[in-house]
Amino acid sequence: MQEKVKKHSTNGSSGFVPLSSKLTERSQSREVSFFSIELFPPKTWKALDNLVPLLNNFRQLGSLFSTVTWHSTMNQLDNMDDILSMQVAEIALNYCWLDTMIHLTCVDMTTDKMLAILERLKQIGITNILALRGDLNENTVGDFHYASDLVGFIRHHYGDYFTIAVAGYPIEHPESMNKQQDRENLKKKVDAGADFIITQLFFEADVYIDFVDECRAIGIEVPILPGIMPIQSYDSLTKITRLSQLDIPNRIIQDLEPIRNNDEAVRNYGIEWTIHLCRQLMQSGRTPGLHFFTLNRQHATATIVKALEIGYSFCHKPLPWKQPVNHRRCSENVRPIFWSGRPESYVQRTNTWDEFPNGRWGRVHSPSFGSLNDYHLFAALDSITPKNRKRYAAMWGKQLLDEQDVWHIFEAYVAGTNNRFGHKVESLPWNDEGLAPETNVIRHRLSHLNRHGILTINSQPNVNGISSSDSIHGWGSPNGYVYQKAYVEFFISQHKIDCLLKILPHYPLVNYQITNSKGDPFYTNCDEDEPIAVTWGVFPGKEIIQPTIVDVVSFKVWKDEAFSLWMNKWARVYPDEDVESHSVLGSICNTYYLVNLVDNDYPNETCLWSMLEQVIVSNHCTSSSHEV
Amino acid sequence: MQEKVKKHSTNGSSGFVPLSSKLTERSQSREVSFFSIELFPPKTWKALDNLVPLLNNFRQLGSLFSTVTWHSTMNQLDNMDDILSMQVAEIALNYCWLDTMIHLTCVDMTTDKMLAILERLKQIGITNILALRGDLNENTVGDFHYASDLVGFIRHHYGDYFTIAVAGYPIEHPESMNKQQDRENLKKKVDAGADFIITQLFFEADVYIDFVDECRAIGIEVPILPGIMPIQSYDSLTKITRLSQLDIPNRIIQDLEPIRNNDEAVRNYGIEWTIHLCRQLMQSGRTPGLHFFTLNRQHATATIVKALEIGYSFCHKPLPWKQPVNHRRCSENVRPIFWSGRPESYVQRTNTWDEFPNGRWGRVHSPSFGSLNDYHLFAALDSITPKNRKRYAAMWGKQLLDEQDVWHIFEAYVAGTNNRFGHKVESLPWNDEGLAPETNVIRHRLSHLNRHGILTINSQPNVNGISSSDSIHGWGSPNGYVYQKAYVEFFISQHKIDCLLKILPHYPLVNYQITNSKGDPFYTNCDEDEPIAVTWGVFPGKEIIQPTIVDVVSFKVWKDEAFSLWMNKWARVYPDEDVESHSVLGSICNTYYLVNLVDNDYPNETCLWSMLEQVIVSNHCTSSSHEV
Repeated sequence: MQEKVKKHSTNGSSGFVPLSSKLTERSQSREVSFFSIELFPPKTWKALDNLVPLLNNFRQLGSLFSTVTWHSTMNQLDNMDDILSMQVAEIALNYCWLDTMIHLTCVDMTTDKMLAILERLKQIGITNILALRGDLNENTVGDFHYASDLVGFIRHHYGDYFTIAVAGYPIEHPESMNKQQDRENLKKKVDAGADFIITQLFFEADVYIDFVDECRAIGIEVPILPGIMPIQSYDSLTKITRLSQLDIPNRIIQDLEPIRNNDEAVRNYGIEWTIHLCRQLMQSGRTPGLHFFTLNRQHATATIVKALEIGYSFCHKPLPWKQPVNHRRCSENVRPIFWSGRPESYVQRTNTWDEFPNGRWGRVHSPSFGSLNDYHLFAALDSITPKNRKRYAAMWGKQLLDEQDVWHIFEAYVAGTNNRFGHKVESLPWNDEGLAPETNVIRHRLSHLNRHGILTINSQPNVNGISSSDSIHGWGSPNGYVYQKAYVEFFISQHKIDCLLKILPHYPLVNYQITNSKGDPFYTNCDEDEPIAVTWGVFPGKEIIQPTIVDVVSFKVWKDEAFSLWMNKWARVYPDEDVESHSVLGSICNTYYLVNLVDNDYPNETCLWSMLEQVIVSNHCTSSSHEV
Repeated sequence: MQEKVKKHSTNGSSGFVPLSSKLTERSQSREVSFFSIELFPPKTWKALDNLVPLLNNFRQLGSLFSTVTWHSTMNQLDNMDDILSMQVAEIALNYCWLDTMIHLTCVDMTTDKMLAILERLKQIGITNILALRGDLNENTVGDFHYASDLVGFIRHHYGDYFTIAVAGYPIEHPESMNKQQDRENLKKKVDAGADFIITQLFFEADVYIDFVDECRAIGIEVPILPGIMPIQSYDSLTKITRLSQLDIPNRIIQDLEPIRNNDEAVRNYGIEWTIHLCRQLMQSGRTPGLHFFTLNRQHATATIVKALEIGYSFCHKPLPWKQPVNHRRCSENVRPIFWSGRPESYVQRTNTWDEFPNGRWGRVHSPSFGSLNDYHLFAALDSITPKNRKRYAAMWGKQLLDEQDVWHIFEAYVAGTNNRFGHKVESLPWNDEGLAPETNVIRHRLSHLNRHGILTINSQPNVNGISSSDSIHGWGSPNGYVYQKAYVEFFISQHKIDCLLKILPHYPLVNYQITNSKGDPFYTNCDEDEPIAVTWGVFPGKEIIQPTIVDVVSFKVWKDEAFSLWMNKWARVYPDEDVESHSVLGSICNTYYLVNLVDNDYPNETCLWSMLEQVIVSNHCTSSSHEV
């Protein structure tokens, strides 16, 4: 049953490096080069909504990894899908692109349960475990008594597959007889196979420094990350220290006493204290990183890591799209262009794949994309809730009276201007974020199209051999050259389709796919078996990397998602009684066509704009009454 | 057991089209658009040497396919490898790039033997069979009595896998009772599953026209190719017509009588007669092509097809290297650059592969190249025989006194000039043919290098996005753009290697591999798992095609072949007693290094030439006594 997580060969993707190796590597240097964060699973589904932006922000700040705590009472073990900690870990890993470690405890744990959990972790792609004893008491049952049992069990069954961390107690464990016994217990855990130690929280640097030195003295050689809790409020401080049976240093108690009811003052005090503490730890030369107990809050930890300038800086993007950290996807280096505005949806739909396309899309024969109904957790991302409905209505219009109202929203989005209600359109149902920087060069083209009812949802300009280090179009290793074919995807009316179909034969170097919500008719001049590379790069010492393609098979999957977003996302902004808005969106969804165009002549100025201009002009001349 | 030869998807290769489909397609038109040829297996190994150029010439003339006759007495059925007809068919298909049909007869054939033969044909890649009865008499045994038995048997066991042709007798079969019975026998063969008919020879167009009309009248609908034998000598004419129990038209007998002892006059008469006959057939609108019984001779058939202008014109080359016609290799579209001067050797070494690289070289993990000892038939190609020794000695020097004599031969080869003995060096052991047209642009560079002992055996200039229709560098479908990284491969002395190794670090964008005949030391900055694309193309509606790569794994195989050619080919030109020549070549083989360099900066002027100039200059300054 033993196996190792494979280190994939590169081919443009960065390759999988186990967390244990990352730590070992960083421990060679005496400088602190990263931070990591601890989260707990939110107790409500609503709170889960806030977790994703929190995780995204910590990733952007440069967190090397996150840990997710385990709550045996909350986690139903009968159905692996329902274990909340694992769901959160999966979100962090797969949808927030953050390497993730899950806590596991001995409490109520049988060997069978543990094996089932470990298998599920493998399925998800989680390769990091913090093995803890947990709070055992006379009521708990289970096959494991000590964290070292857990470590040994995992190593016995899975070899080096998992990176395993264990907890260390700078102030001895509340239940241990004395400091010496405590350190020896820790050594037992390390000897059982732990890769590194994360300490329990403490408030003074000396405590950590002495602890590390004592550990080293008895032969503990693995990295020891200091666990740091920024004080966020007087209440949380006293509660946590009571639970952890820790004493708060007198100085802190004295300092906080006068401001204990002023939350902001307490938080600022905590930030200052923690920055000071961290600086001492960084100077101690005893740790490669700092681990923060965030209590699921962003402000304090974010302020501290910015002040310390320890964000792990991600290198230049290895591929044009955001690359997953899940080791199972590390060899993935080809994707259809269609989901580029909705990468989470793409990851969700493909996360059951056994093998990811590497080098060529064609190798994945009839890929089985998850259907729209497969959305579990991530339906949340697309859901219009009472809380966010107002924000969406401000962006997308409080009420829609005709199709031009919709065109206007599209135009405001691509132009980056406020809509006529004075609000910035920061996203559309087809674009989770704002326009990519490279879209800037074609922004005025897109505004013009949208103003005239060519509702663009995806596009890229052509690029002919620009340096891979280019700040806008560049990706991949240095000294390479990157290329793109001009691409544009949009919804247009039946009437404009008639114009377009007449014009297309004059552009033999343009590949097109055109269909409606029913998928019938389906016009295309693409070869069904042959994907079209629309983004590729040439690098020293490598094969050509072609990370983005356009193909018929996945377009047919995408068009269902693209059409569904009219009613399942946009229309949800409006109450049922708003018949007009629903009717406008319903009419577009039912009568408009989805079109994508690839101009294969990438070295020359693209013909796509003049081609679409002809559609606009020709449409004006022959316009039917309900179109402008 | 039934299966269909898969029609591979394209990806830059032309895809496999069964011969039956090619004929059906061409039969739609009323014009004759191709010719094909019949060969017999030569009776001596020496004659086999002449067969390869013959086949190559007919391919270049545009023969659509060749047929190879079956000789049950010559073919040992105990060992499939020894069946001469199959060996010849394999050569025609795999090494002469000519689609090939094998004759099979009922004579002495059991069902077991037939199944073994059909399996072997599948292994080789032969998909076309001419099913014949053969000359059955009371002494022959076997499970098949009529060609229709054979056709039915093959269809029963292999479905549509094979294209099957049968013979038709415009003048009724010698053993048939009457014309009607003869035509009904033919219909039986077609009904059993034959795809088309090839007729027995005849001399007058009306015979064929009447025959076709009679066949059509009784419902035979498959194409009927006229079988045409240019008269090549009076003796062969009388012998063949006697064997076929055919009458020669009186007019021919009268015409030939006065010139029967003048072979040239007879041949010219035959050519004129046949051209006239063919013109009538072409005007008859009854056949898509003409099938010539060549008697293994080139002149007459070649003259006729040139006069008729019916060579099947091959389209623009789909890949930069000559593409095999074997359907098993039809999806192949990536090769290492090393064998580009010896494509036959590459095909030989890889013909046991189950799957050929398509799109990416990396997918073929540790490909098992045939070893140098695996050469069977094709050892002939490399063999220096008493007959060709003189030609090679003229090209490569009658005697070699020092290394400069060898340098001189290399220089003459790349310069395209005569060597100092007044002979053109048309090939080198590493290059079966003359320089490729694209090498012209770097010819003067290469001359200079070879003059100074940098003995180039392979190279290509860099190309930055030239039209795929370019007459020199172009390949693949129209409207594409092709690219190349500059590449050069050469042998140089140990002393120059020392210079080169000092210079290389100044050229970080150059990938290199350097080793000697022992493979130790082996210097490289290439990633062992990562091939380097050195030729690629971007085409409308396709993925990027990268048909030529440089990689470490196959270079290690190639270097054994490259070094072996010094002694196993070049040195064989000299008699054993020529100690000097052997010693010069032995010394180069044992002390020189094989180097390949890839300049990754393809958009700019390559640095390879100035880099190697430094090696020459630096070598001059510090030259050891035995080097110039």
